[in-house]
Amino acid sequence: MRPPLKFAVIGIDHNHIYGMINGLIGEGAEFTGWATSAETPLSQCQRFGESYPDVPMVEPDALLDDASVQLIVSAAINDQRAGIAIAAMQAGKDAFVDKPGCTTLSELEAIRECVNATGRKWVVCFSERLQVESVTLADQLIREGRIGKVVQTVGLGPHRHNPSLRANWFWQRLRYGGILTDICAHQFDQFLHFTGSTQASVVTAHIGNVANPDRPDFQDFGEVLLEGNGGRGYARVDWLTPDGLPTWGDGRMTILGTHGTIELRKYIDIAGRPGKDHVFLADQKGVEHFEATGAGLPFFGKFYTDIIERTEVAMTQAHAFLATQLALQAQAKAESQQ
Amino acid sequence: MRPPLKFAVIGIDHNHIYGMINGLIGEGAEFTGWATSAETPLSQCQRFGESYPDVPMVEPDALLDDASVQLIVSAAINDQRAGIAIAAMQAGKDAFVDKPGCTTLSELEAIRECVNATGRKWVVCFSERLQVESVTLADQLIREGRIGKVVQTVGLGPHRHNPSLRANWFWQRLRYGGILTDICAHQFDQFLHFTGSTQASVVTAHIGNVANPDRPDFQDFGEVLLEGNGGRGYARVDWLTPDGLPTWGDGRMTILGTHGTIELRKYIDIAGRPGKDHVFLADQKGVEHFEATGAGLPFFGKFYTDIIERTEVAMTQAHAFLATQLALQAQAKAESQQ
Repeated sequence: MRPPLKFAVIGIDHNHIYGMINGLIGEGAEFTGWATSAETPLSQCQRFGESYPDVPMVEPDALLDDASVQLIVSAAINDQRAGIAIAAMQAGKDAFVDKPGCTTLSELEAIRECVNATGRKWVVCFSERLQVESVTLADQLIREGRIGKVVQTVGLGPHRHNPSLRANWFWQRLRYGGILTDICAHQFDQFLHFTGSTQASVVTAHIGNVANPDRPDFQDFGEVLLEGNGGRGYARVDWLTPDGLPTWGDGRMTILGTHGTIELRKYIDIAGRPGKDHVFLADQKGVEHFEATGAGLPFFGKFYTDIIERTEVAMTQAHAFLATQLALQAQAKAESQQ
Repeated sequence: MRPPLKFAVIGIDHNHIYGMINGLIGEGAEFTGWATSAETPLSQCQRFGESYPDVPMVEPDALLDDASVQLIVSAAINDQRAGIAIAAMQAGKDAFVDKPGCTTLSELEAIRECVNATGRKWVVCFSERLQVESVTLADQLIREGRIGKVVQTVGLGPHRHNPSLRANWFWQRLRYGGILTDICAHQFDQFLHFTGSTQASVVTAHIGNVANPDRPDFQDFGEVLLEGNGGRGYARVDWLTPDGLPTWGDGRMTILGTHGTIELRKYIDIAGRPGKDHVFLADQKGVEHFEATGAGLPFFGKFYTDIIERTEVAMTQAHAFLATQLALQAQAKAESQQ
C-alpha cells in the first residue's frame, strides 16, 4: 500500500491538464480540489467540472492553505505558471506544471531560488516524452545497446493551431512565451533525455511567422540546433499541420546512434499502419517495426514515489531547469536576430 | 531527330559514373571513349570496360583533342575533378562532373573563371535529386500548389561506408574534401531546389568523427543549417548506416509548406512497403501515399538539350556554383570550429 498523495489543481487553461491529473490518479493519488483564473472560459470550467464531478472548485488560497495537499498541478496560462509554482512551493508543496514551466529567464531564476530555499520540487510535464509509449520502448532499445551510443536527435514537432478554438492569450507573445519556449519545450527535454546530456547550449535558433500574417505576434515556425555533453540535436517546430492530417501533428523523433537508428512516429504512421506509437529500428541485424502501445508510461509512478521519498528518479530537478533554460535561451537568441 | 551529342569519360573512380553515362546514353548521346587515373584499381577498370565493351579506353589527351567530343563526364577522385573540368572547358567542351564538383573554394573560383572565359558549362550531377523519381513527383505536387509555399526542408542523408570496399582516398580529408563537401553536396542542391532559393548562406555547420576512431582523417557525421531567399533548410549526413538496413541509406527529404508537407522516403519505406521512391503528402484534404517509380527523370533530356541549344533548363550555371559554394563554405566553417 502506497503512502497517500493528495494534489490540487490551479489553472486548467491548457488541455494537458487532463493528462497530468489522470496520470496521477492512475497511480492512486487523490485529487482534492481545483481553481483557475478568472480568464478561463466558462465552457472550459464546465467541461472540467463534469470530468471530475466529485472534486470541488474552490479559491486558490484554500488549496494553498490546505496542509493535506502535497502537490499543486498547473496548466494555467503560460505566463501564470511561474507564479503558481512559486506560491505552491512557498506553501510547502511540490509543483507539477505543464510545459512551458515559465516564460522568462527571470521567472526561471525565481523558481530556482524558490526550489533552493524551500527544498520543494518543480517538475515540468514534458508530455511528448513522459506520456508517449513509443518513448518508453525507445528507452528500452537504447538501454539494450541496439543502436550503440546515441550521437544525435532530430525532432520534428508540427502542431495544428486550430485558430477557432484558441483563447486570446494563445496569440500573444508575452503570454504564450514564443514558439521555442512553448511547443519546442518538448524538444529540449527529449534532446537532453535521449543524448543523456547534463550540460548543453544553444548553437543557433530561429523563429518566424510564415503563414499567419494576420497574427503578427504569433510565431508559427521555430528551429534550434543544440550541442550537449552527450550528443547533438536539431529540432523544428511549427503550427502548420494541414487540416488533412488525421492527428494534431506528425510528431517524429529520430535517434541516431553509432550502430543504428530509432525513429519514433509518435502519433501517426503517415498513410500507413493504424494507431500511434510506431517505433522503427535499424540496427546491425536488420530493420524492425514495433507497436509500442502497451509499453507503459513509467513516469507517473516514479514521480509519485519521488514526491513521497524525496528522490529524483522520474526527473531530476537539474533536468527540468536545464530543458527550460535552453528553451528560454533559444527563444531570446532567435528573437535577438529578428 | 535530335542533333548528335558525343561525350567521353575521364575518371571512373566513383560508381556514380554509371548513372551519369547511362542517363546520357538513354537520351541518345554517344559514348566515344574513356580514360581514368593510374590510381583507379584495375578491377574497377575491368568492370567498367566490360560494361561498355564497344567504347575504347584511350589517353585523356586524345579525348580532349577530339573535336567531335562535346562533353566530358567525370567521376574521378574528388580532388581531381576540378582539373579535369577545367581542362575539358579549355578544350572547348562542357563538363559534367559527379558531386562534389570540387574540393576547395579556390578550385571553385578557378572553375568559375574558366566558365566565364570559355562560355562552356560546368554541371554537377547531384544524383540524390536528379536521379530520384520521388523528387520528380514532389516537384509536380509542389507545382500544383498542394503544400502552399515551401518554407523549409529537412534532409537526412545517412550512407553506408563499406570500409572493405573503399580506396585509400576515401579516408583522406584532402582527397574526398570533407563530409559536408562530399555527401552533403546533395543536400545543398536539394535545399536550393525545393525552396527555390537563388541566394543562401550557411547559418552554422558541424562535423565530427563519432564512430571511426581508427580513421582520424575521416568525418562520419556532419550537419548544416541554411538560410535562403526562398526558405530555410537543415541537413544531417553521416556514414553510420547500420549493416541491417537493406539499402545504403534511409535517405529522407521532408518539405514543409505553408499548407502541407511532403516526405520523400527515397530508398526505403523502412519496415514498410517494398520498393523505393515513396512520397507521402499531407495537405488540406488528407494524407496520401504515392509510389513514384515511373515518374521519370527529366534531367538528362533537358541537359542534352541545354548542351545543344546553350540553354539552362536542366540546371542553371548559378545553381551548380551556389550549391557547391555552400558546401565548401559549410565545410570550412565546421572545420574552423573543431
